[in-house]
Amino acid sequence: MLAPIAWATPPAAYGPWEQVTSHLTEGLVQRGIDVTLFATATSKTAAKLVATVAAGYAERAGQDPKVLEYLHISQVMGVAHEFDLVHNQFDFMPLGYGNLVDTPMVTTVHGFSSEQIVPVYEKYNDSTDYVSISDADRDDRIDYISTVYNGVDTRQFSFVDHPEDYLVYFGRIHPEKGAAEAIEIAQKSDMPLVMAGLVQDQAYFDERIAPHIDGDRVKYLGNVGPDERNRILGNAVALLHPISFEEPFGLSVAESMMTGTPVIAFNRGSMPELIEHGKTGYLTEDVDGAVDLVSACGDLNRWHVAEVARDCFSVERMVDGYISVYRTILDRKP
Amino acid sequence: MLAPIAWATPPAAYGPWEQVTSHLTEGLVQRGIDVTLFATATSKTAAKLVATVAAGYAERAGQDPKVLEYLHISQVMGVAHEFDLVHNQFDFMPLGYGNLVDTPMVTTVHGFSSEQIVPVYEKYNDSTDYVSISDADRDDRIDYISTVYNGVDTRQFSFVDHPEDYLVYFGRIHPEKGAAEAIEIAQKSDMPLVMAGLVQDQAYFDERIAPHIDGDRVKYLGNVGPDERNRILGNAVALLHPISFEEPFGLSVAESMMTGTPVIAFNRGSMPELIEHGKTGYLTEDVDGAVDLVSACGDLNRWHVAEVARDCFSVERMVDGYISVYRTILDRKP
Repeated sequence: MLAPIAWATPPAAYGPWEQVTSHLTEGLVQRGIDVTLFATATSKTAAKLVATVAAGYAERAGQDPKVLEYLHISQVMGVAHEFDLVHNQFDFMPLGYGNLVDTPMVTTVHGFSSEQIVPVYEKYNDSTDYVSISDADRDDRIDYISTVYNGVDTRQFSFVDHPEDYLVYFGRIHPEKGAAEAIEIAQKSDMPLVMAGLVQDQAYFDERIAPHIDGDRVKYLGNVGPDERNRILGNAVALLHPISFEEPFGLSVAESMMTGTPVIAFNRGSMPELIEHGKTGYLTEDVDGAVDLVSACGDLNRWHVAEVARDCFSVERMVDGYISVYRTILDRKP
Repeated sequence: MLAPIAWATPPAAYGPWEQVTSHLTEGLVQRGIDVTLFATATSKTAAKLVATVAAGYAERAGQDPKVLEYLHISQVMGVAHEFDLVHNQFDFMPLGYGNLVDTPMVTTVHGFSSEQIVPVYEKYNDSTDYVSISDADRDDRIDYISTVYNGVDTRQFSFVDHPEDYLVYFGRIHPEKGAAEAIEIAQKSDMPLVMAGLVQDQAYFDERIAPHIDGDRVKYLGNVGPDERNRILGNAVALLHPISFEEPFGLSVAESMMTGTPVIAFNRGSMPELIEHGKTGYLTEDVDGAVDLVSACGDLNRWHVAEVARDCFSVERMVDGYISVYRTILDRKP
């Protein structure tokens, strides 16, 4: 398991790629699979840990990311022949080593940091198997073996049957995530809104969000931990997810559904894969469409919402998905 | 020949690593050696050119250097088995591939961009052979097979027997290169100074250099091309090189000597290797020491200076040095 090395695996706080890598690694170990995790020395795992670098380049200042990346990847590739399979969670950089080692490599495409990276993935279509994290996130130029959704640790979320009378926004405070639109939806629905998430665009927060925060109709709780996340998601009538970009996978959408709370989302990116319209939430096009749907959330069966989420977006389901991918690749091996 | 890809090989203007790579490549082809140059598509060579990227990341804006680097290096390594030897001119990044290919690799260490890179070189002591560009630039932690000095194209420099009455400074305008000290030496010696070079530190130029430029006692010509370089170096009584850092190799020192002009340098880095004190120039410790030596330059035999330079620092000598390294490596091969 070739982890990203921006952060520890699992990360202390932020670090979505490392988090998914950790969930998968621990899940595979629980199934009795012999896994070696190549990651930072700050990582924790029940697998064998091979620490390639002392600490992640995002968690300890003054390190040269380029030096760490090359050291990390070349260390894995140097011993790849000892393994049946290499699972690359660390973007395009390991791909160029693929032709030099006989061990098959599977690569999870967590996202494209720029359009310039796509041709690199395309170049190595024949030497690695790509996994997409949603069907929506696929690029026509790349060949995929499967889609495997990111898994959520279901133990961190408890089912709530009878919610309180508020809406919730949960995610980075950034225009593409629709924080301002969430406020507008709540105000037009005459419902209180609870907001939480890291401020990623301070100017946007100052201009579009802060003026509405009054601690009553609009509350902002900052970047919250797992317990508070569980509480504020679970007790809401609905999660508002009015995104304006093609989101590859909405982690907060899956998390909200785990607690039984349905999601009203703008119909972009992976949303139709995550949300069954009229069953686990609603897909709509704009603020007014969302306002019309707020009252309809009471009609949804929260137990069904949670059941679907646990069935589709759990760590266990993700582990099943990757084991199936591994089997396909290994059966193909001469 | 794995070239750097910041610039074309050879570079249109600045690009010292690419320039040395080009000189070596063309020199090897002239000796009848079958060379394939892996470089930007903007490169020109008498060798076989394999263009791995359209243009260098420093010569065409908007490209992701990381993407280009990985594509470039992995393309070379993917076909390394077709060659007797890979010569890596592109820093530490190719080193991690060395264990994955059977073809021996020789790496020229052009410089350490940061202290963090040294342990990477150290890690691969056993899987590549390192060449230093001067004995002074060696690091104790790294094993070297040889020192090969950078080669200067002697055809670009003509010998001048009777210089005019001025001193010259030639190099980047930067504190470590000693541009301000050169002015001080010239003023205390009551000699005119001609200066040329790229302004690399604008504040330093504005504060320490510009106030002295009067077009008479201190002239600054900007960043000059080969013809003017030859003219201003050749007609000077001496090149002033009052550096304050451990310079790995002083290209302008070698170039000046090609024209017969001796060099007065501060005794740092590779200077004692480049300059034979009392024969091809003088080594000293400070401004006053340099002032005392200016009049002594007339005692030196300019023809001898040029002869030593052409013998030690020509492209031909560099090609000899690398062919000798290649032979040592290939003879060792089982």
